[in-house]
Amino acid sequence: MKAEIIAVGTELLLGQIVNTNAQYLSQELAALGIDTYYQTVVGDNLGRLQRAIEIARERADLVLFTGGIGPTQDDLTKDALAGLLGRTLSIHQPSMDAIEQFFSSRGAHMVESNRRQALTIEGSTPLANATGLAVGNALKHDGTFYILLPGPPKEMKPMFEHEAKRWLLEHALTSEQPLYSRMLKFAGIGESSLEAQLLDLIERQQDTTIAPYAKEGEVTIRVSTKAASADEANAKLQEVESEIRNRLFDHLYATQDVPIEKVIVERMQTLGLTLGAAESCTGGLLSEMITAIPGSSQMFNGGVVCYSNALKQQLLNVPVTLLEGPDAPGAVSSEVAEMLADQVRQLTNSDFGIGITGVAGPGMSERKPAGLVYVAIAQKGKPTEVMKLQLHGGREIIRLRSVKTVLYHLWRRLG
Amino acid sequence: MKAEIIAVGTELLLGQIVNTNAQYLSQELAALGIDTYYQTVVGDNLGRLQRAIEIARERADLVLFTGGIGPTQDDLTKDALAGLLGRTLSIHQPSMDAIEQFFSSRGAHMVESNRRQALTIEGSTPLANATGLAVGNALKHDGTFYILLPGPPKEMKPMFEHEAKRWLLEHALTSEQPLYSRMLKFAGIGESSLEAQLLDLIERQQDTTIAPYAKEGEVTIRVSTKAASADEANAKLQEVESEIRNRLFDHLYATQDVPIEKVIVERMQTLGLTLGAAESCTGGLLSEMITAIPGSSQMFNGGVVCYSNALKQQLLNVPVTLLEGPDAPGAVSSEVAEMLADQVRQLTNSDFGIGITGVAGPGMSERKPAGLVYVAIAQKGKPTEVMKLQLHGGREIIRLRSVKTVLYHLWRRLG
Repeated sequence: MKAEIIAVGTELLLGQIVNTNAQYLSQELAALGIDTYYQTVVGDNLGRLQRAIEIARERADLVLFTGGIGPTQDDLTKDALAGLLGRTLSIHQPSMDAIEQFFSSRGAHMVESNRRQALTIEGSTPLANATGLAVGNALKHDGTFYILLPGPPKEMKPMFEHEAKRWLLEHALTSEQPLYSRMLKFAGIGESSLEAQLLDLIERQQDTTIAPYAKEGEVTIRVSTKAASADEANAKLQEVESEIRNRLFDHLYATQDVPIEKVIVERMQTLGLTLGAAESCTGGLLSEMITAIPGSSQMFNGGVVCYSNALKQQLLNVPVTLLEGPDAPGAVSSEVAEMLADQVRQLTNSDFGIGITGVAGPGMSERKPAGLVYVAIAQKGKPTEVMKLQLHGGREIIRLRSVKTVLYHLWRRLG
Repeated sequence: MKAEIIAVGTELLLGQIVNTNAQYLSQELAALGIDTYYQTVVGDNLGRLQRAIEIARERADLVLFTGGIGPTQDDLTKDALAGLLGRTLSIHQPSMDAIEQFFSSRGAHMVESNRRQALTIEGSTPLANATGLAVGNALKHDGTFYILLPGPPKEMKPMFEHEAKRWLLEHALTSEQPLYSRMLKFAGIGESSLEAQLLDLIERQQDTTIAPYAKEGEVTIRVSTKAASADEANAKLQEVESEIRNRLFDHLYATQDVPIEKVIVERMQTLGLTLGAAESCTGGLLSEMITAIPGSSQMFNGGVVCYSNALKQQLLNVPVTLLEGPDAPGAVSSEVAEMLADQVRQLTNSDFGIGITGVAGPGMSERKPAGLVYVAIAQKGKPTEVMKLQLHGGREIIRLRSVKTVLYHLWRRLG
């Protein structure tokens, strides 16, 4: 079954709000085995909304609307659909009673326009609104299913979850197989290299699909399949996952959609290991990302944002001879990265220490180019590992990639 | 001029990501006086994408694409548009050189598919990608303007800002009376309080429009007007700005779209002042936000992420009697915030010191509720100021609001 989601609201077209409803519904529909082929946003304009519906019913079996069912003259979704289908609108008395009850219980005067929120399209199933006043609608017309939901997410989500989903299962999904999927997360590898290593799998995919996509510093693959049961789906997904794992063992850090820092925090908690960080060019970004994870206080002792050379000397004992002078390696050097990692590990009394020093840009520093970054990992009882990176992109990207790279190597150390 | 934004990507239709690009572009287009009539999302499917383009060119003068210009076989936007318009695709040599340079500079093998990122449509203007590899395109065909942008926001935004906007102004917006606007940025005040103080101005707005919108921790007002010349526009905008400034003097920190930390970095640079920070619950977020600003190394000496109590004692001399024991105020207290600010100021030899300690949540800590945060500002030769905050929201929001609040008070100190 093919679906289209139409979000109605000029505030979306002005960019005042972002269309999170489309994301929520797309996820929910995918879980029901319904493929969303299009998401459309249209303003509060009767003619344009009706033309959008005409297009949608040609290309989808199910059209879901969010928004445009409130009390104002701009709320036109029911009028637009009823008009196009040649059906009438009438007051749904239980919804009208609930609206009147809402106002009278607050001792407030009900503005007449609120009656519009109780309208339903002739022959439709009303969908109760547990967290608001506007009643939803569900109907089938000429082989197309239509579902009308409110715009505010806190009304739309419960109505979809408790009302629309049941209606769909009873009326539209009697013969469909649900879609099951699994997320695989990779670090330390780019999207194109990863895809190149899986190209034969991607090209021969049939009822199991493999879809890669990249975010900054990490790559995700979603493996999906339709199946009659969860057991059957798990068997199919497990087979594909095993094949991918065999090829990309060193990079596959999770089988759910989590960032690598979350995996590290949880792994170090489990192993009873602790971490400290000394950051120069990343200015606290690594510490911030680690401490964004709830529970990180158990494994992260803290660290030093040693932005100035004075602080590198004072707190991390970096000798001035490394930092200054014509023949000194300078603050951006393998030697200093190593010292930062070693010293912060000892300072914070941790099992692991991370040191980062580099040129985040824009512009050079110490006559070294933007993007030159040294990262180091110290571990109690093991030699300290230093990596030289030459990164590209703006300041923000260089900082983020520095952190993601050192986190990837830390994750590998944790085994 | 009517625009349609087409986002290309199956990950959007699966609900894996939310279409923030459409919001950004809608705002930017509105600022140029271009009305967005539709936003469409379509998957990585040649046929469906081409049908979406056919619909869009019927109902819009300008079609903007985001996504589908990367290296993989799923990246089809250029193929789809070129095919539909009967134009060829060819390699744009400067972009190809940049891609090759990118791989060779890091000693990496360039996977052949990366060549696809240098493709341009016959007769189009290439749009340089300052933060990624895929070149964008802009062209006019049969009276319709087309702009192709990358999907990742980090690439899309700079390309729109620096390349596509100029192309639009030169090719598509030559006969329109240009829209001039000015951004006013506020801190330390919520959107509804701000709007309440400006309600009469907002309600009587005619050819000058006042549009407030809120992001986490800051509020923006965009004042816009159409005018025949920049001088005429400036006069109109200045009048509105002066009235707003009179009313909200204590909160208006910039007249361009910059975060408050940028204003602070530049102001402290100018004044020759320096800063150090000791962060507990914010885990380096303040340091990270300050050091994200180029040039911050001149005013930010660094700091300590004193996540553990041991580090608070060891580096910041917080006495154990404050931290532990039945009658001790505990790590989350006014006393500790004050010590962190004072001590980190001295430790980093700075003019200002910031201390932050609190419960970021989820869950309580020291039997104190999530959202309880103490922030302190120490200044050489002045009494240290401590503020108690009771914030609401999840861990991420509590951390961000803590930082934005203390930055607001630091900004006020700078006069």
